[in-house]
Amino acid sequence: MINLLVTLDSKYIKPLKVMLKSLFLNNQEEKFNIYLLHSSLKDYELEDLNQYTENHGSLFTSIHIGEDYFQDAPTLLHYTKEMYYRLLAFKLLPKDMERILYIDPDTLIINPIKELYEIDLEEYLFAAAYHDKITVKEINRIRLYPYDIQAYYNSGVLLMNLDAQRQHIDENDIFAFVEENKSKLIMPDQDILNALYSKNIKSIDEKLYNYDVRFYRYYKIMSGGLWDMDHVIRNTVILHFCGKKKPWNKDYRGLFYALYKHYERIALDNS
Amino acid sequence: MINLLVTLDSKYIKPLKVMLKSLFLNNQEEKFNIYLLHSSLKDYELEDLNQYTENHGSLFTSIHIGEDYFQDAPTLLHYTKEMYYRLLAFKLLPKDMERILYIDPDTLIINPIKELYEIDLEEYLFAAAYHDKITVKEINRIRLYPYDIQAYYNSGVLLMNLDAQRQHIDENDIFAFVEENKSKLIMPDQDILNALYSKNIKSIDEKLYNYDVRFYRYYKIMSGGLWDMDHVIRNTVILHFCGKKKPWNKDYRGLFYALYKHYERIALDNS
Repeated sequence: MINLLVTLDSKYIKPLKVMLKSLFLNNQEEKFNIYLLHSSLKDYELEDLNQYTENHGSLFTSIHIGEDYFQDAPTLLHYTKEMYYRLLAFKLLPKDMERILYIDPDTLIINPIKELYEIDLEEYLFAAAYHDKITVKEINRIRLYPYDIQAYYNSGVLLMNLDAQRQHIDENDIFAFVEENKSKLIMPDQDILNALYSKNIKSIDEKLYNYDVRFYRYYKIMSGGLWDMDHVIRNTVILHFCGKKKPWNKDYRGLFYALYKHYERIALDNS
Repeated sequence: MINLLVTLDSKYIKPLKVMLKSLFLNNQEEKFNIYLLHSSLKDYELEDLNQYTENHGSLFTSIHIGEDYFQDAPTLLHYTKEMYYRLLAFKLLPKDMERILYIDPDTLIINPIKELYEIDLEEYLFAAAYHDKITVKEINRIRLYPYDIQAYYNSGVLLMNLDAQRQHIDENDIFAFVEENKSKLIMPDQDILNALYSKNIKSIDEKLYNYDVRFYRYYKIMSGGLWDMDHVIRNTVILHFCGKKKPWNKDYRGLFYALYKHYERIALDNS
């Protein structure tokens, strides 16, 4: 059994089903325990996701987070308290769960995920990838100064060491950090992750586990040609459709558009 | 049962398997009778293709064309007598077969093919699509003058009315045409098809049945935006990777590259 975590609102149900379809198709030997943390999904939406997951031989558990939860947590202009679900999932999930893999729903899982799930986490709180474009790293290092950030990790794929998190993550540290840095935070959960826990994150290869689809040419050039399309399709596990333009919207363009639409068609036609 | 025709040499076995994999995956309710016309494939290659087809619940028949066949046929510098297989298939296939669908191996079949196969052929010899870019049509009209060409059909997807062909196609007309136009012919089989049989071809929509992957933007603009990626993935039956650059080669680029590589991986991993 592989534990998988997602958090979303109604707008992301379709992308989630596409992501799950790609996961199931490319991991037919695995069974998944899919946990959904949410505050606003409707019963029929949850029932639909439950049915969809069961049809593929996996399990679905939704956990509703009431308004009273995270009462002491500060909020930000454009963000709800849902920004905390990812970092504080260890408080919301079953107490005996040891690890879970969080994945953003704007992804495709195009190869077996088991090797990622079974990475030795040692004492690290998370495993995550940072997007190794110099600009991204530098901009965020300056933005979050004086916090010492060696790499700016992307929070779209997070393998969580729940035991270690229960011991070492204090929600009050997180709330205090948000309170103090309100004006600076752009992507709050990702900023928190990097400012507070950067040193406790085990690095994983972004090209395997958090492939930013906008960077195909960059990855290819930087690898001396190794990471061409053939190599990506055979090796990359998680394609991440980062950025504002999403492949389920009309205005999208991009090298992985046809592949996304392919999975979307299969996912939404025969649910 | 749907009769499918392919003709190829060893270099095209891999693309053929990719094409067949896409066909099988997107036409799971159909059974296919796949006929291969060839002059040079090895026994182990034929056995491999036979096994591959049977594993997917369809039938495979190879027909070897000996060197003595088409003895009177003229040849061209860069082309062997295989250029005649497509147009004279009716002489090589079982005498009682009524129709067969020829498909180039540089294609993907991404939706059900039944509707194409069952098109009413009336008295037409073929059904085919012409690529409706003004330049293509004009250039070929001038090139093949004085033959009256209304449209320049692409011979990559040909639905064949074998009964009508047996009655109306005379191989000697074809050989005579080639003899007379040796210097002009660029793509001989396609040129013959258009020069001699243009008026006996039933037009089918290229965007559905012979979608030239190089023309995504053109199709989209000319259709007022209708043929966007979503529409293509849901409606196009045959994607045709026309042109010199092929998606199984290293130097390929293009909008459908990731999708092709996806099918290629599935096709070649678990044969």
